[in-house]
Amino acid sequence: MALFARLGIAGVGLIGGSLGGAVRAAGLAGEVLGFGRSEENLRVAREHGLIDRVVREPAALAAADCIVLAAPVGTCPGLADALRPHARPGTVLTDVGSVKGTLIAALEARWQGVGPVVGAHPIAGSEAAGAASARTDLFRDQRCILTPTATTDPQALARIRALWEGVGARVEEMPPDVHDQLLARVSHLPHLVAYALAAAVGEARVGGRAALEYAGGGFRDTTRIAASQAELWRDIALANLPALRAALGEFRAALDRLEALLVAGDAAGLGAALEEARAVRRRLGVER
Amino acid sequence: MALFARLGIAGVGLIGGSLGGAVRAAGLAGEVLGFGRSEENLRVAREHGLIDRVVREPAALAAADCIVLAAPVGTCPGLADALRPHARPGTVLTDVGSVKGTLIAALEARWQGVGPVVGAHPIAGSEAAGAASARTDLFRDQRCILTPTATTDPQALARIRALWEGVGARVEEMPPDVHDQLLARVSHLPHLVAYALAAAVGEARVGGRAALEYAGGGFRDTTRIAASQAELWRDIALANLPALRAALGEFRAALDRLEALLVAGDAAGLGAALEEARAVRRRLGVER
Repeated sequence: MALFARLGIAGVGLIGGSLGGAVRAAGLAGEVLGFGRSEENLRVAREHGLIDRVVREPAALAAADCIVLAAPVGTCPGLADALRPHARPGTVLTDVGSVKGTLIAALEARWQGVGPVVGAHPIAGSEAAGAASARTDLFRDQRCILTPTATTDPQALARIRALWEGVGARVEEMPPDVHDQLLARVSHLPHLVAYALAAAVGEARVGGRAALEYAGGGFRDTTRIAASQAELWRDIALANLPALRAALGEFRAALDRLEALLVAGDAAGLGAALEEARAVRRRLGVER
Repeated sequence: MALFARLGIAGVGLIGGSLGGAVRAAGLAGEVLGFGRSEENLRVAREHGLIDRVVREPAALAAADCIVLAAPVGTCPGLADALRPHARPGTVLTDVGSVKGTLIAALEARWQGVGPVVGAHPIAGSEAAGAASARTDLFRDQRCILTPTATTDPQALARIRALWEGVGARVEEMPPDVHDQLLARVSHLPHLVAYALAAAVGEARVGGRAALEYAGGGFRDTTRIAASQAELWRDIALANLPALRAALGEFRAALDRLEALLVAGDAAGLGAALEEARAVRRRLGVER
């Protein structure tokens, strides 16, 4: 049964495109509209069956009864501004952003008097970008975190929950600031670390040789997410600054501890510390 | 044509086991002997056809005309000590260690008067360990770095080159210290960073929730090599301390730079810095 007559997606990339395709496959909306900056990407989305129809103006997108902002976090408030004059009363505004506190507050302010806002973050995706990399099973068995606030409409929340459950996600609710502190650690920090590692090694030369030429599988894995879109992660990092700095502090402390053991030549201590870290990682499984 | 009548491998794990299997498949040795700490692992190696025969005493391993030390770097000098009294004159001693300077100097000192020493490092492998994870095609089209010193015997060097080329590796020669400075950056540093990231996030709790529960693909990739054997990387880090500290300094500088742009709220500067790092990573390709 359709949850929405018309679902509008602003930003039909990896996440927005996968959502569109999954919603269409599950029949969760009467029609899926796609809106975005790149004509070429929208064409791909249409050809891959991720959306029913391309719309070229905010006014046309605002004809939807639910609008999903799936664009870089920094562009979402501006999108809400552009949509607001055209939106129908009661239209649900939701998003997929990797940061919630500042973003949801900004969207609630802009959507005031229009309709309900529900913050959502599907934990899925990769360094890939664009509609061409979308997959309708991207969210299956993955977590999707909803971040209701004091003013979130319970009915709208229930519908967005049903939307994500309908595309196979395991939905969980938590306050926006808890989300942001968790994601700072498991996502935003690793991205910053991967970018820093790529930047440092990219410049390193030894005896006329570029270090990067000697990279093996370990370096490739560790820096894979540094191939992610810079604009996306710039916005996320800026929008989650306090939590990200706290996470950075914890990471630096862990690195300092390993370096201190190393410099002290404390083989037993270093071995034990690495073994502890290994046990953490192995809790996530080691499959490829 | 067999390069060696009898190839002895001390440590039949992922690297040693894969080498044994590849040498047998290519007929590069008359016989491959396996020696190691774990009876169970040696049994697996034998069953998987990675070695012809298990030997239980250093004296039996020393009957080989070429001995490959494929054990954790820290145990290699002790292995050379144990083998020396039994070794036949002219037996070639080689290794697969991820650090070369201090290790090769130690092996040359211990093998003085016995036979030639040739340092080798195949850039292959993963966080997996043990004979069960060995693959005879592990070295195909991968780099293998040989690190001759002023005293390396040219004929022995040529034979070890032929051995690695025979299992499909692309062989390159460079001085041990150049190797160590390069690998500090593309391998040892990423391992330390991955261990630190796993350690930091493993302990993080927010609002009663363990951060690790919310890890997605990005965290899994970035920390994958923290599932590697702690003993191996403890030894490597300790044996390559000066180069690793220099690499750590470069990494910290790159991370500091990103954090400074972030704290300054410099969206343009941060975007450009992330874009540069992304370009570095994309030079390695983005395939999975």
